[in-house]
Amino acid sequence: MEVYLDNNATTMVDPKVFEQMKPFFCETYGNPNSLHRFGAGTHPKMMEALDYLYSGINADDEDDIIITSNATESINTVIKGVWVDEILNGNKNHIITSEVEHPAVTAACKFLESQGVSVTYLPVNEAGVLEAQTVKQFIKEDTALVSIMWANNETGKLFPIEEIGQICKEAGVLFHSDATQAIGKVEVDVQKANVDFISFSAHKFHGPKGVGGTYMRNGVKLTPLLHGGEQMGGKRAGTVDVASMVGMGYAMHLATTPMALAYEDNHVRKLRDKLEDAILELPETVVIGGKENRTPNTTLISIRGVEGESMLWDLNQKGIGASTGSACASEDLEANPVMNAFGSDSELAHTGVRFSLSRFNTEEQIDYAIEVIVNAVKRLRNLSSSYAYAPETHKSGL
Amino acid sequence: MEVYLDNNATTMVDPKVFEQMKPFFCETYGNPNSLHRFGAGTHPKMMEALDYLYSGINADDEDDIIITSNATESINTVIKGVWVDEILNGNKNHIITSEVEHPAVTAACKFLESQGVSVTYLPVNEAGVLEAQTVKQFIKEDTALVSIMWANNETGKLFPIEEIGQICKEAGVLFHSDATQAIGKVEVDVQKANVDFISFSAHKFHGPKGVGGTYMRNGVKLTPLLHGGEQMGGKRAGTVDVASMVGMGYAMHLATTPMALAYEDNHVRKLRDKLEDAILELPETVVIGGKENRTPNTTLISIRGVEGESMLWDLNQKGIGASTGSACASEDLEANPVMNAFGSDSELAHTGVRFSLSRFNTEEQIDYAIEVIVNAVKRLRNLSSSYAYAPETHKSGL
Ligand SMILES: Cc1ncc(COP(=O)(O)O)c(C=O)c1O
Ligand SMILES: Cc1ncc(COP(=O)(O)O)c(C=O)c1O
Repeated sequence: MEVYLDNNATTMVDPKVFEQMKPFFCETYGNPNSLHRFGAGTHPKMMEALDYLYSGINADDEDDIIITSNATESINTVIKGVWVDEILNGNKNHIITSEVEHPAVTAACKFLESQGVSVTYLPVNEAGVLEAQTVKQFIKEDTALVSIMWANNETGKLFPIEEIGQICKEAGVLFHSDATQAIGKVEVDVQKANVDFISFSAHKFHGPKGVGGTYMRNGVKLTPLLHGGEQMGGKRAGTVDVASMVGMGYAMHLATTPMALAYEDNHVRKLRDKLEDAILELPETVVIGGKENRTPNTTLISIRGVEGESMLWDLNQKGIGASTGSACASEDLEANPVMNAFGSDSELAHTGVRFSLSRFNTEEQIDYAIEVIVNAVKRLRNLSSSYAYAPETHKSGL
Repeated sequence: MEVYLDNNATTMVDPKVFEQMKPFFCETYGNPNSLHRFGAGTHPKMMEALDYLYSGINADDEDDIIITSNATESINTVIKGVWVDEILNGNKNHIITSEVEHPAVTAACKFLESQGVSVTYLPVNEAGVLEAQTVKQFIKEDTALVSIMWANNETGKLFPIEEIGQICKEAGVLFHSDATQAIGKVEVDVQKANVDFISFSAHKFHGPKGVGGTYMRNGVKLTPLLHGGEQMGGKRAGTVDVASMVGMGYAMHLATTPMALAYEDNHVRKLRDKLEDAILELPETVVIGGKENRTPNTTLISIRGVEGESMLWDLNQKGIGASTGSACASEDLEANPVMNAFGSDSELAHTGVRFSLSRFNTEEQIDYAIEVIVNAVKRLRNLSSSYAYAPETHKSGL
């Protein structure tokens, strides 16, 4: 059996989404900016896609949703746009973010630091969550932007976006939230949340890879990252990828209807909990950050005495795909920075395994996964000298 | 009959290319950076795609080809990367480009000007071509980059890239060429041309929209435009869009074999010439920039007394898709900047119609197009007061 439990890395394109995309490769292939029928033929489905995107995040008609190539581009658009407008050409010089953001945010901030910008990386509490009041404490006169993720990719932990949004609004500071791991898992409502910008990637909610979006509140100006033609009202140049835009729109629709979110919150959560509870029955296992306030599909579990990478190989042999954390980081075998930030001791920081489910997982798959995982843990613990020889000394861990 | 003659705006995805892409939506959908089989399953086809890309432009194994979302992103990557490295953090302050570049280059340069960078926009001669020696004259001590297109999108005019490359190499100045309109139409050999960077978009050579590439010569360093994960060796972050990358690779392969280029140079050229010659039989028509040294698929024709936009509407009624110039610009009805740059008088600058063919056009289609175009010109000239009442005064035109 094959069981894909790495949906926070990327998801399968929903076959219904692919159906919507198909005509735009070899049939209705015109450039939407062209005046003729080959171009104009793309417009109805593009409009429909935009409608789905707007309603999926409750954007206002006056707001902008810019189609990008992924969340990384969206994030770089916001952070570097603010850099150019408010810092290079303005009088601000400070950005606030958290210690557990995705590398797209962290690396863009590190780049700004290399250009003389001051960046504050806020720590998270033992539950892996940033407290809204911490943000308030660090906002200064020259703070240009607060960038805090909506949900963490490793733990699924949800951040208090509404509260942070309120604080930023009151302070008159721009607020960006990386919502890449939130869309389709929990409600993302840009009005309620008082965000100025959000970023997302279609491939995290059963849309295609290579397309994402940036929400921009009406009236907020931003120097584009991609200068060029007049596409997206001059806010993101480049020939529009119609198939991907249509795919993302439909994927957003399928993922954000009240019914879809309820399915995620009930059915997917039940499967995740079943998997998690079964693993937690093994001694010396712990959910990093605890069980409260997470996306319903994610669990990051630390299993004492079991190297995350070895575990993944074992699971892979049996057809199960999981992760030690973000796919971006998994090429190097370093300790997981999120787990370090959460204060796990350095041995534990090597032992996290992330299981992230989707609406395509079945109970049968989860039952099979549980069997495989439990056997793998037993096998690996037998091999592990540190665990086998001194289990008692670790009990004090987490 | 439907006849698509706007292939410089975008092309149909070759059905063979789409076949290659299909498995990567709903079947082999893993993140290539993941360690498990779902991710690793993407690797063989990705490697194959890279091979096609490297051999398509004769890149060296040590060089980089970075997968981007389109030529616009590639161009912005190069121009803004050089800005950060050589200007913001270096001691250069000057860029050389031409007056007839695509808006992706021009708008990125205008942005740099807004940030205090000095930009020289070199004029083209009556044939619409930049002379290599002009570049040499304008290179200064503090020139960071020369960016000159390989082939013009409106006229198809080929620029003397090898010569310019040699001049830049001797002067020790970085050289970027926007090769978006050259790939698949003429040979693009990055070694012969001495370029440090080229940019391209798959959808211009029967690949999918939403994916492009940046070639970077071995050893050339460039601050990335998209900071984030370690994809593309840290040079372009963001989850890799496997389907699109595979599609672009295969499209590159199909478009750049010696046979494919010979087909373009013989068969497509013959059809283009047939169409062009038939239009030129009408009085007071002219090929903008003349017939020499063009990509084989393109003709930009000015037809006195006929508004380009009116002509397009007429053709569209009969199922023919053409353009007044770049699709990006066609939403506004301003005079075509390329035609202005070519020195056409301002009335003529409103009358250009671009026909751009592809390997999918047939002789039957061209015969039909000729009939429709000739009739449209006659009809519109009858309606055109300026043409009908004073045809003689225009003879001195071009
Ligand atoms: C929280 C978060 N932000 C941003 C990204 C970047 O997404 P993409 O690789 O599609 O640009 C990811 C995906 O790994 C993510 O999980
Ligand atoms: C010469 C040239 N450069 C760049 C581009 C931009 O390509 P894209 O819109 O795919 O980014 C185009 C396409 O219109 C072009 O013709």
